[in-house]
Amino acid sequence: MAIVIIRQDNKIELWKNALLKANSSLKVYSYLDEHPKEDITMAIIWKHPKGSLANYPNLKCIASAGAGVDYIFNDDTRPKNIPITRIVDPFLASDMSEHVLAAILAHLKNLNTYKLKQIHNKWEPMDYLRIKDVTIGILGLGELGALTATDLTKFGFKVQGWSRSQKNIKGVTAFSGDNEHSAFLSTSNILVCLLPLTPATEGILNEKLLSQLPKNAYLINVARGGHLVDDDLIALLDSGHLSGACLDVYHTEPLPKSHIFWNHNKVHMTPHYASVSDTNSVIPQIVENYKRLDSGKKLQNLVDTDKGY
Amino acid sequence: MAIVIIRQDNKIELWKNALLKANSSLKVYSYLDEHPKEDITMAIIWKHPKGSLANYPNLKCIASAGAGVDYIFNDDTRPKNIPITRIVDPFLASDMSEHVLAAILAHLKNLNTYKLKQIHNKWEPMDYLRIKDVTIGILGLGELGALTATDLTKFGFKVQGWSRSQKNIKGVTAFSGDNEHSAFLSTSNILVCLLPLTPATEGILNEKLLSQLPKNAYLINVARGGHLVDDDLIALLDSGHLSGACLDVYHTEPLPKSHIFWNHNKVHMTPHYASVSDTNSVIPQIVENYKRLDSGKKLQNLVDTDKGY
Repeated sequence: MAIVIIRQDNKIELWKNALLKANSSLKVYSYLDEHPKEDITMAIIWKHPKGSLANYPNLKCIASAGAGVDYIFNDDTRPKNIPITRIVDPFLASDMSEHVLAAILAHLKNLNTYKLKQIHNKWEPMDYLRIKDVTIGILGLGELGALTATDLTKFGFKVQGWSRSQKNIKGVTAFSGDNEHSAFLSTSNILVCLLPLTPATEGILNEKLLSQLPKNAYLINVARGGHLVDDDLIALLDSGHLSGACLDVYHTEPLPKSHIFWNHNKVHMTPHYASVSDTNSVIPQIVENYKRLDSGKKLQNLVDTDKGY
Repeated sequence: MAIVIIRQDNKIELWKNALLKANSSLKVYSYLDEHPKEDITMAIIWKHPKGSLANYPNLKCIASAGAGVDYIFNDDTRPKNIPITRIVDPFLASDMSEHVLAAILAHLKNLNTYKLKQIHNKWEPMDYLRIKDVTIGILGLGELGALTATDLTKFGFKVQGWSRSQKNIKGVTAFSGDNEHSAFLSTSNILVCLLPLTPATEGILNEKLLSQLPKNAYLINVARGGHLVDDDLIALLDSGHLSGACLDVYHTEPLPKSHIFWNHNKVHMTPHYASVSDTNSVIPQIVENYKRLDSGKKLQNLVDTDKGY
């Protein structure tokens, strides 16, 4: 048995070295090098080229090197009926929580707008909002959403969450299902999208949903670009219904230079870097699953292939 | 007895109406209108014209309409030997704490730098810092500093504070006096200045002090512009010793349009609006002191006229 690493950024050697450092007896190959395809039992992948997973007749596990797995389901040529695992990195969730907190506070205190005013040489004080006066709505209460919601309650925010099935999180007002969607939206001053991207959630941040937020609401999308209908957001920003948006994710990344988001003064962009997997904390999880694969034990952090996350 | 309001912004009517709403029997005058100077026993002031306090022979109390009182001590023509009071507004401290938290998180997550990159159409991810990995040093542990320090410990930061005399704040490592200044500075990754402005602290944020911070340290000045030696900050930003600065206060406000801060990409400016007195929460304090003045009781929130704060 052996491992192949498939990713299109320049991090294959980094991952290979980190795996060998954790266990020097592992057999690890880059998909770009010559390697024995029949030996490969685990593929550690991140945004692999479509079709590249079809080359391994004895593949027993697809291990996503990140928390997201939507890109795997978008590849119809992937081997079906083998387990898919994902990263559950404690820092992925806490990094996300810290990013969302940063984005919320920057909004309350107008920091992004002041940066624009600074560039334009304008001294223009603006009223600010207080933590006690805003309600944060978290759309999606998976690992990342649940920790973010919990952390925000500790900081003194009123926090409510919506998820498909009811979740109980201490201090967080729970909404669930289609029936409670409107009640959740109409009371969320800041909406944070942390949903998984599935056929059911694609394009969910559209005019119909966003217009149900209260006037002057603010959107933070840190999930996937595919959740958002870009033109609907722009229309609601321009009409004044929404006061702004902080976006970390986009339909195409890097975002094409001609996209309207770059120059819109109510859109505040970060380059898909809210929370990034750290090899130091994720390698042990993957090595553990590789051992389990060998001994036939149940894998950790399995993806539900029906739900797609 | 009567009250005069002296301030040079356009808020005199706002304050007058708020005082009369709290107690309609009060006699309240604007210093710009005709008024009986002998009747005035309390002056409610904010950045008054120098000399304007000398007109009231029976003045018994100078009430600053904000937390700061340094501008009063800068007016040598003020009546001496009468009590000065200041505002201790619970929101002033919590607003400051929220602003400092916003500034810290924006730094950790590079939000200001990303805003600049957005304007320049650049998709350039940058490594971020984590709350658990930085130590915040609070310079000055008065009401604002103490609450900010306490709040930051709740958010998971390592927090240390320096003050002239030793303070004990739960969870905050205490440094005090000249002997412990260097030890405090050399371990503070983010320095937050919340000192009062006095002759002893004027220009304290100079090359000598700032160069004792660790490499890549970040400065947040939310106290007074007079604490900072602007050229020393610029030199340390340009040499790379400091990674950036978030400033809310300046020697001259509004900051002159030709000042180097406006166009420096490591200086992030807000227009002295971190924390602003809210008449709703401060009027009752001033009305209470006015009653006490009448009945000869000890005033609340007295300024120590020897220390100057």
